[in-house]
Amino acid sequence: MGGDHAPACVVEGALLALRDAPGRFSVVLVGRQGAVADELARLGGTPAGLTVVHAPEVIAMDDPPTVALKAKKHSSIAVGLGMVRDASAQAFVSAGNTGAVFSASTLILGRLTGVGRPTIGALIPTSRGRTLLIDAGANVDCRAQHLFEFAVMGSIYMTSLEHRERPTIGLLNIGEEDAKGNEVSQEAFRLLRASSLNFRGNIEGRDLLSGEVDVAVCDGFVGNIILKFGESVPAFLKAKVKAFAARNPLNALVALIAGKGLRSSLKELDYQEHGGVPVLGVRGVSIIGHGGSTPKAIKNMILRAEEMILRRVETQIQETLRAHHG
Amino acid sequence: MGGDHAPACVVEGALLALRDAPGRFSVVLVGRQGAVADELARLGGTPAGLTVVHAPEVIAMDDPPTVALKAKKHSSIAVGLGMVRDASAQAFVSAGNTGAVFSASTLILGRLTGVGRPTIGALIPTSRGRTLLIDAGANVDCRAQHLFEFAVMGSIYMTSLEHRERPTIGLLNIGEEDAKGNEVSQEAFRLLRASSLNFRGNIEGRDLLSGEVDVAVCDGFVGNIILKFGESVPAFLKAKVKAFAARNPLNALVALIAGKGLRSSLKELDYQEHGGVPVLGVRGVSIIGHGGSTPKAIKNMILRAEEMILRRVETQIQETLRAHHG
Repeated sequence: MGGDHAPACVVEGALLALRDAPGRFSVVLVGRQGAVADELARLGGTPAGLTVVHAPEVIAMDDPPTVALKAKKHSSIAVGLGMVRDASAQAFVSAGNTGAVFSASTLILGRLTGVGRPTIGALIPTSRGRTLLIDAGANVDCRAQHLFEFAVMGSIYMTSLEHRERPTIGLLNIGEEDAKGNEVSQEAFRLLRASSLNFRGNIEGRDLLSGEVDVAVCDGFVGNIILKFGESVPAFLKAKVKAFAARNPLNALVALIAGKGLRSSLKELDYQEHGGVPVLGVRGVSIIGHGGSTPKAIKNMILRAEEMILRRVETQIQETLRAHHG
Repeated sequence: MGGDHAPACVVEGALLALRDAPGRFSVVLVGRQGAVADELARLGGTPAGLTVVHAPEVIAMDDPPTVALKAKKHSSIAVGLGMVRDASAQAFVSAGNTGAVFSASTLILGRLTGVGRPTIGALIPTSRGRTLLIDAGANVDCRAQHLFEFAVMGSIYMTSLEHRERPTIGLLNIGEEDAKGNEVSQEAFRLLRASSLNFRGNIEGRDLLSGEVDVAVCDGFVGNIILKFGESVPAFLKAKVKAFAARNPLNALVALIAGKGLRSSLKELDYQEHGGVPVLGVRGVSIIGHGGSTPKAIKNMILRAEEMILRRVETQIQETLRAHHG
């Protein structure tokens, strides 16, 4: 029931995933039975490998996460994650309220041993490919140890899901010199430097889009602001192009021709289009997608969830951080 | 002697300022006498209203600020700011090492009464005009009271220099709801809400480029990262356009035609092109420009310094914050 176009887009995405990977997995749609059944009927019926579990309540996109989780015990988010906790599902995927899915993942699935703070990471486009920005907004007040854990979890994710060997790690800071930044960054720098991670040192805001590292570590306050700033760049450029086009007819023609080609490049800045953001550090697989997720985006999230199960991301995180602590 | 093309660009910029505003002010060039004299000779001699003060040392762009200030007592930065302190000049302008100019402004000029932390603000381009992002990187660990002071100083600056009546203030945060953010943001929110400033509440990363407010308040850690991220957008888009152009000859033609027109829009993202960033909260006027400042940028900084003197920004800050404290 999550996302701006639920349940239509979610149901359609699930069907796409099953068609693309027949027999590899089954999908359970969790939501209001009647609404889901209507969508399935509209789309040609219920295929093999698809079942529906009824969840009468819906957490709205603008509900305050913790309040909503307490008040709505039978939301699709709570019921779906309950299935993962009870091992009747192996992964949860949602295009719903990001804060609610993250909080519910932590509360219902629980933290992995050795993880102080579960986190979410966002893959952002760069000139060279993609960089994982972690934490992407889940934890606003972080200690150095938390940033270190984000680096470990991000490194495992990029090795397992994006096939990077020994992913490079950068600490997002206000300068490249070792002693830069606030107290937390300075201590995190020392922890990362002393670890076995492929730590490249401090990176600056300008090193994100140039793709200097595979994993960029920051607290969720900075991560959230950067991501939302990045998402707003296309609209800003659109306004600028419009002003440029308004100057004379030749400009208008050029803008018209160029606009279409450039739009696809700009769309990449919307980081949530690509397979959602993983919740890392919890007991189970949970992926959060953009509220505006298309059926294709939902399909990609399901396929990514399958990959996270197969690559045993959860077990790797647990083993690495447990070893680190003791 | 500051900037990537010193002293040539600085000397040329000073001459442009004097030509644009004959008789309104005089300019003192502070630097290595020989090098400055050579430039003046190259550019046609020393005009009326221009003098040279010798400063034998140069703080390099990559010198650690505090170390450099101690080791180089006779740098152009130290000598120039010393002249403002001694009232033999009314404003200091430099395209040199940002950290060194900021630290020296604080140390040599001193803080205004009621100012806990002097700050720098950067004017960033938006869809609607320009927004002041304050703090732009000077203070990485801030308390709520400091953020409040940044808002007061930013508001005065935008009224006086950008002619905004009752400038709107936003607190950069991870959500628009009142209780969002980390501990410092929540307390700053309360201070701002209780003040007589035109406070609009929390804003998000996406609200910067859309120009939701006249003044966006954040700590220097976030401010620096956002600004450097923004500066890197043009290079990222250039790489994307290049990839687009490489796909086929038609694309290449479109990219070629469109590239030139769009470049000027993108250049705006380089916030330091426009009159430099003011140091606010110190006893005197001090403006820091981009290391790559062109002569025109230097000229704009000098004209802006004149305006800061005429508008009595320093006195206004002092009076407002003194009244606030008691």
